[in-house]
Amino acid sequence: MFGPIPSTNPVLAGDDFKAWHNAIGGELTTAADDSWRTVLREKHPDMLHLLQFPYNGEPPKRLVTSKTITPNPLHFVRNHGGISIIDKDRRPMDESRFPRIEKTVTIQCSGTRRIEHIQLYGGQGDEVPQAPWAEGAISTARYVGISLKKVIKDCGGLLKPAKHLELYGAETYVKDLEVGNYVVSVPWSKVRANEVILAWEMNGEPLPKIHGYPLRVIVLGYIGARSVKWLYRIKAIENPSRAPVQAKEYLYFNQQVGKYNLCATDGIQIQEMPVSSAIMSPWTKQTVVHIGTIRCKGWAYSGGGRWPGRVELSADGGFTWYAVPPKKLSKKGRWTWRTWEYDLPCDVEGWIEIVCRCWDNSLNTQPLNVRAAWNWGLHVTSSAHRIKVYSVNKSRELTRKRLDKFEQLGISLAPLTHYDIVPGQTAEEYEQYWRDHDPRDVDD
Amino acid sequence: MFGPIPSTNPVLAGDDFKAWHNAIGGELTTAADDSWRTVLREKHPDMLHLLQFPYNGEPPKRLVTSKTITPNPLHFVRNHGGISIIDKDRRPMDESRFPRIEKTVTIQCSGTRRIEHIQLYGGQGDEVPQAPWAEGAISTARYVGISLKKVIKDCGGLLKPAKHLELYGAETYVKDLEVGNYVVSVPWSKVRANEVILAWEMNGEPLPKIHGYPLRVIVLGYIGARSVKWLYRIKAIENPSRAPVQAKEYLYFNQQVGKYNLCATDGIQIQEMPVSSAIMSPWTKQTVVHIGTIRCKGWAYSGGGRWPGRVELSADGGFTWYAVPPKKLSKKGRWTWRTWEYDLPCDVEGWIEIVCRCWDNSLNTQPLNVRAAWNWGLHVTSSAHRIKVYSVNKSRELTRKRLDKFEQLGISLAPLTHYDIVPGQTAEEYEQYWRDHDPRDVDD
Repeated sequence: MFGPIPSTNPVLAGDDFKAWHNAIGGELTTAADDSWRTVLREKHPDMLHLLQFPYNGEPPKRLVTSKTITPNPLHFVRNHGGISIIDKDRRPMDESRFPRIEKTVTIQCSGTRRIEHIQLYGGQGDEVPQAPWAEGAISTARYVGISLKKVIKDCGGLLKPAKHLELYGAETYVKDLEVGNYVVSVPWSKVRANEVILAWEMNGEPLPKIHGYPLRVIVLGYIGARSVKWLYRIKAIENPSRAPVQAKEYLYFNQQVGKYNLCATDGIQIQEMPVSSAIMSPWTKQTVVHIGTIRCKGWAYSGGGRWPGRVELSADGGFTWYAVPPKKLSKKGRWTWRTWEYDLPCDVEGWIEIVCRCWDNSLNTQPLNVRAAWNWGLHVTSSAHRIKVYSVNKSRELTRKRLDKFEQLGISLAPLTHYDIVPGQTAEEYEQYWRDHDPRDVDD
Repeated sequence: MFGPIPSTNPVLAGDDFKAWHNAIGGELTTAADDSWRTVLREKHPDMLHLLQFPYNGEPPKRLVTSKTITPNPLHFVRNHGGISIIDKDRRPMDESRFPRIEKTVTIQCSGTRRIEHIQLYGGQGDEVPQAPWAEGAISTARYVGISLKKVIKDCGGLLKPAKHLELYGAETYVKDLEVGNYVVSVPWSKVRANEVILAWEMNGEPLPKIHGYPLRVIVLGYIGARSVKWLYRIKAIENPSRAPVQAKEYLYFNQQVGKYNLCATDGIQIQEMPVSSAIMSPWTKQTVVHIGTIRCKGWAYSGGGRWPGRVELSADGGFTWYAVPPKKLSKKGRWTWRTWEYDLPCDVEGWIEIVCRCWDNSLNTQPLNVRAAWNWGLHVTSSAHRIKVYSVNKSRELTRKRLDKFEQLGISLAPLTHYDIVPGQTAEEYEQYWRDHDPRDVDD
């Protein structure tokens, strides 16, 4: 039915989701197939596919922060079902009646860097399609739309006791073997602040199909899960939505809530993401040949309208911190990340741990390790980002000489883990050492 | 040539070693085949095979410390070549001329727990047959033999300037594509202290072929690498052996010595192992259902004639330490490990980190993390042993109720990482919670 997987890199196929959609029938029979064709048409060929269906993908590390505005084909995608089939001739409303809003907005999935959660302990993440996101489930785009507040006012305003707005997407959502639409809610206070936009344009183009064409919600400073795509209905309600996306998923648990004592009400519904950051270059387990400083690149972000005030890097696992100079950070925006680069001083030869952390304008900062914020839901991995790098420091004489010798002999550097038979020390040098130094053992 | 691998569990085949031995020819043509047949005949069927040839194997975790004296079929094996073919009628000497020595001795490979070194950073360990030892490269046996000192005295004593004794094994040893015998040395001071034994009996039986029949060296309190098997020659020399096992391997480097700046003389030749310990039960990523204490088992050891004085356990990653009561430690011996068990208090639900460490009679203790002692040679992983365990605490009401419900419904516990569709909280309970509690968001 779905044909062979193309020569890209899907990690999880999503067979259960495909089978469920097929079983429901009707237009959903071809949902998985349609979805994958849209991926191939709309997304960059190098996207890292975490889940084929529902489609979940992020840009490869080298492209995550290569531009401060993410090109549409590289913007991460976190879908929960198929891509809705929309009748192009039915426009939802006459948007010209409302002031046009144009905003640059960073959207982050609360599963960003979930892979670190999974690597530490697992949880339920490695069996169900809780996509194993790396650092790329965050992207930035310029949206055009109108304020939801104005639309509601135009409809006559909100009646008491309504305090929340429930947003319905045409996307299917499966939870505990029950199927429904993708539904969440946002508080009226957020709408009233003009921080909820109904958008139809992304980086100067109509919304791509995969990103919610023709109309989606953009909730400024909230997790991506609230920015409903393929919006088809808005309902005023008294309490936060009881739909499963809001009530049973995207919850932030305490460390001691787990598989056998879990209650949804023990989780905080995730709305704003806390301050976080990530290193995009170099990458973990890479060998970096340098002469005393290592060029590092990455991003930093804080939810809720806060912005990165300072980014700090450490080459010694978080003992000593260097600040990225302000001019090496991209410019501030109320709803956007800042990308950065920095030449991190490093004298060490061998394995080091590079760490980055951010302080936002409210002076919030990140927990120092994954354990501190690990939770059964595998959401919000906002701890200081740590990567292991093998430092080869050519400013050290012995290292420089050895590498020069390799070059003379025409030997290219093998992967670090390959055994190397180029002799380091000659037999003469060995004997000379022991003539010049004390023996291993004491003599008494 | 070697036939199919039996239905056991070899991890690395050792194809290069097999090819080298085959290329040398003569008796070595069948060395790999002979070696594997000996494994099948002499070793326990559940041995964990780390390398098929040269044979490297350790007992499975549940059997490492099940007895304080390791049965011969379960004793770990670290061979470097084939098992020597010995003419049974040629006895090396008349041992009845010397006092008989009987000693219980723990032998530890300096690669014990190397897997933690490899998991942290890799190094060269994952490409060359540097066996990825876990915690089982340590075993204890009762040996019968004679003192090497007496033999040398009997031969007329040592002449100046000799200060070391070079020990030759019949085993082949390949280093940097050169082949030789397995050769190491021990200082005369160690021999003079009567701490080097020539042994022919192991746990009341003649030495198994795989353990050095008919004669091997046992160097008390030194790493296993010095206890040469299939001993055929002893030579008095002025300096430590220049043979590669002693001069180029079994070296303990500083963290900043690596692939491109390595000099053998920067490594300390490893003789005595430092104090270390390991947890054998429970095991990492296991789910442990308990009522407030977790039964833990393991070993502790210190080289050089020192012994474990105290073993401590932590259920919180090394913040709080409990001492194993002396009666729960096996008895002291100058050259032996101590096995232990302890019911570790644990109130926590969810992921915990159990850590153990030992203090020896000289009050030496272990570094607290692998990083602190990581070295390019991947030797001596003596840091406090850490395992991740998922604690299910039935002394907590909610957990007990949930598990009772599972039992009523006849649902057995799935692996932790499998998604669970048994509902935790009912819709009524959910609504009741929100009637009793403040809403998520503030209202202003």
